[in-house]
Amino acid sequence: MPEAPARIIAVDTHDIRFPTSRELDGSDAMNPDPDYSAAYVVLRTDAADGYEGHGFTFTIGRGNDVQVAAIDALRGHVLGRPVEELCADPGSLFRDLIADSQLRWLGPEKGVMHMAIGAVVNAVWDLAARRAGKPLWQLLADAEPEWLVRQIDFRYITDALTPEEALDLLRRGREGAGDRRARLLERGFPAYTTSPGWLGYDDDKLTRLAAQAVADGFRQIKLKVGADLADDVRRCRVARAVVGPDVRLAVDANQRWNVDEAIAWTKALAEFDPYWIEEPTSPDDVLGHAAIRRAVTPVKVATGEHVQNRIVFKQMLQAGALDIVQIDAARVGGVNENLAILLLAAKFGVPVCPHAGGVGLCELVQHLSMFDYLAVSGTTEDRVIEYVDHLHEHFLTPVVIRDGHYTAPTTPGFSAAMRPESIARYTYPGGTFWAADPDTQKGQAA
Amino acid sequence: MPEAPARIIAVDTHDIRFPTSRELDGSDAMNPDPDYSAAYVVLRTDAADGYEGHGFTFTIGRGNDVQVAAIDALRGHVLGRPVEELCADPGSLFRDLIADSQLRWLGPEKGVMHMAIGAVVNAVWDLAARRAGKPLWQLLADAEPEWLVRQIDFRYITDALTPEEALDLLRRGREGAGDRRARLLERGFPAYTTSPGWLGYDDDKLTRLAAQAVADGFRQIKLKVGADLADDVRRCRVARAVVGPDVRLAVDANQRWNVDEAIAWTKALAEFDPYWIEEPTSPDDVLGHAAIRRAVTPVKVATGEHVQNRIVFKQMLQAGALDIVQIDAARVGGVNENLAILLLAAKFGVPVCPHAGGVGLCELVQHLSMFDYLAVSGTTEDRVIEYVDHLHEHFLTPVVIRDGHYTAPTTPGFSAAMRPESIARYTYPGGTFWAADPDTQKGQAA
Repeated sequence: MPEAPARIIAVDTHDIRFPTSRELDGSDAMNPDPDYSAAYVVLRTDAADGYEGHGFTFTIGRGNDVQVAAIDALRGHVLGRPVEELCADPGSLFRDLIADSQLRWLGPEKGVMHMAIGAVVNAVWDLAARRAGKPLWQLLADAEPEWLVRQIDFRYITDALTPEEALDLLRRGREGAGDRRARLLERGFPAYTTSPGWLGYDDDKLTRLAAQAVADGFRQIKLKVGADLADDVRRCRVARAVVGPDVRLAVDANQRWNVDEAIAWTKALAEFDPYWIEEPTSPDDVLGHAAIRRAVTPVKVATGEHVQNRIVFKQMLQAGALDIVQIDAARVGGVNENLAILLLAAKFGVPVCPHAGGVGLCELVQHLSMFDYLAVSGTTEDRVIEYVDHLHEHFLTPVVIRDGHYTAPTTPGFSAAMRPESIARYTYPGGTFWAADPDTQKGQAA
Repeated sequence: MPEAPARIIAVDTHDIRFPTSRELDGSDAMNPDPDYSAAYVVLRTDAADGYEGHGFTFTIGRGNDVQVAAIDALRGHVLGRPVEELCADPGSLFRDLIADSQLRWLGPEKGVMHMAIGAVVNAVWDLAARRAGKPLWQLLADAEPEWLVRQIDFRYITDALTPEEALDLLRRGREGAGDRRARLLERGFPAYTTSPGWLGYDDDKLTRLAAQAVADGFRQIKLKVGADLADDVRRCRVARAVVGPDVRLAVDANQRWNVDEAIAWTKALAEFDPYWIEEPTSPDDVLGHAAIRRAVTPVKVATGEHVQNRIVFKQMLQAGALDIVQIDAARVGGVNENLAILLLAAKFGVPVCPHAGGVGLCELVQHLSMFDYLAVSGTTEDRVIEYVDHLHEHFLTPVVIRDGHYTAPTTPGFSAAMRPESIARYTYPGGTFWAADPDTQKGQAA
């Protein structure tokens, strides 16, 4: 009698929240007091190997319960799937999830439901990479171009990228990958740091952290701007004086402005030679970003952490709205959709500099940039991954930064797994931290 | 001692689902088996008048629980608000809800969280209109232009519409409103009907219902298309033969196509003189709609029921992507955001033909079109509200269609209130219908 194939037997979810608002870590012009959180999912199987798949959506506090409810709403699509089939073709689940005709009404392909899909799909990739015994970047870089193309849903993007073009990009992209892999393992992938630049920090803290960033080997730092122009001018002057003319200084407005304001404010900061202006306006505004880019050149325009899906990225590229594509590992529909976005960026010749920070976003997104380097763009020139030095201690295999570079992970998987003791402590509201905290109701209720 | 002001004392939510999939009512190329549902909210106060405010989000089944959870996440913003202040300025709540910095991360202003905001905001407008003793269309049409402008959040749209331009549109729009009001009360507002055209209906049913529509006084019907071209050609031929050359025949692809497919398919149906092609592709694809419009003229391009917010509508208009703006009363952030969208459409001279159907969408959106007629566009020419003859019996003041026109409601409020016995029967999964239904698990589980 043949053995029954292993199946997914549980989709466990956790509402995990960290009290980051108390230190103003993560404070910016739109998000004055975030409590960095994760709607966390664990896929369990009945396979003898005992591997699990971990994934999550990043949120900043309130609403993390809604995000968990959205992941729970996907459970029926996942339970009972044969593990081997699923890991051999994560795209099959991705397609089923985005095509659920009833759930689709809640998006389509945007916001809470789409992020939930991303969490589940990423958990499958984590499981697949663990079973393959490879870090995800390596699994992707080793994959055949034909297989990678089948992982992509081309609906709504064929006017910018066809499957044939994607295949061609991937075939050419892998040429010389062996040499690049050796360099990646030796030097890592360039990072930049946002740690000095939170809006809630005073000038002394900014000065100290910016100097530290340069000493640590970073060649780019980022400052949050957009709340008060005089403050921004002062802070940019302080930062530029500390880092000198050769370290790149990016600024980030977190969607604070209308189109006209974005143009005027960016020009007012131009004397400090900002490398890019990030999220100058609504992430939905393709035409607005295009107008801003035309007006503020040579300052580059960057966005993406809130761009909802491949369809908006496609238009940003078609309209010439962006100089920098900032993918986020946990905003869109997971690895599958990010493959489409990486290829769209390559097609249009625009560098990808991922958004990270939050909870575990650095851990995830490093894999996508390393794959991009090995098998798509083939270069790290003008490519940097954001780095923020918070909350890594809660992960089993936290990112390792060395001389301003992300070290290539070697542990199999997607680096997504949180430490069990962190999950137990920060589960909201019942975990030991929150249950013992007198401010729990005040800090989390709306 | 002055009396304490009345406050909002409860935000009750209900997960209500109707088993519409069993009759293929509502079936289209993307939604083969919807169970029309409402995430329903009731605001209760401690005022002596006993008035409540009712609102809801429309969904098509699975995920309605996620939508309810999202409304629940807003409760803290609403409880305890003074009723009089709130009703005098619903925009104050709207602004607070879209600006909640933590919840904003789950959008921003799109998908599940934004629809939840719309449900709550619309419930406030229902309460405000009941307290004013007016149907909502009349409350809006009687309001001062200055007050209406203050109800709008102009963030991210000032490059297309400034507050000053909005004020000017509203001042000019109300000229002659008295005459139009008399005509509205006498004749109503033109409707078109989608009832004949569901994809799941056979040709006999299509023929019978199309003939009935013409007999009932409708001057436009709509057919769902996009699953199979040969079927669509046959069904359009049948429909055109039944209704004759003078009744408008719209077709609706429900986002089924890529840009190239949309162009080819629409051209293949051109011989039947379709009035508009609705949702030819992704509602996120501004540039795609613009390309389609350029290619399929003189067939008009319409979309909006899934357009997530004013920012995407703004771009659709800026890019010349639409001939028809199809607002939906319960997709965006409620009446306040729809005021912005109506004014954007007026600024660009594009007629508004609302999406309706679903659960209670006809009941809500008629108020917005009637306000548009009285105080913004000033005309019903080329303006029609969708009408679908399902589920009205569950509302306390259902729409009244007479000779192909929506009769102006006279009952105070937003026509949003569902019958208590319908709520009790169709609450999922505990209501008497679902609890007694042997297919409950099978029909609703993913």
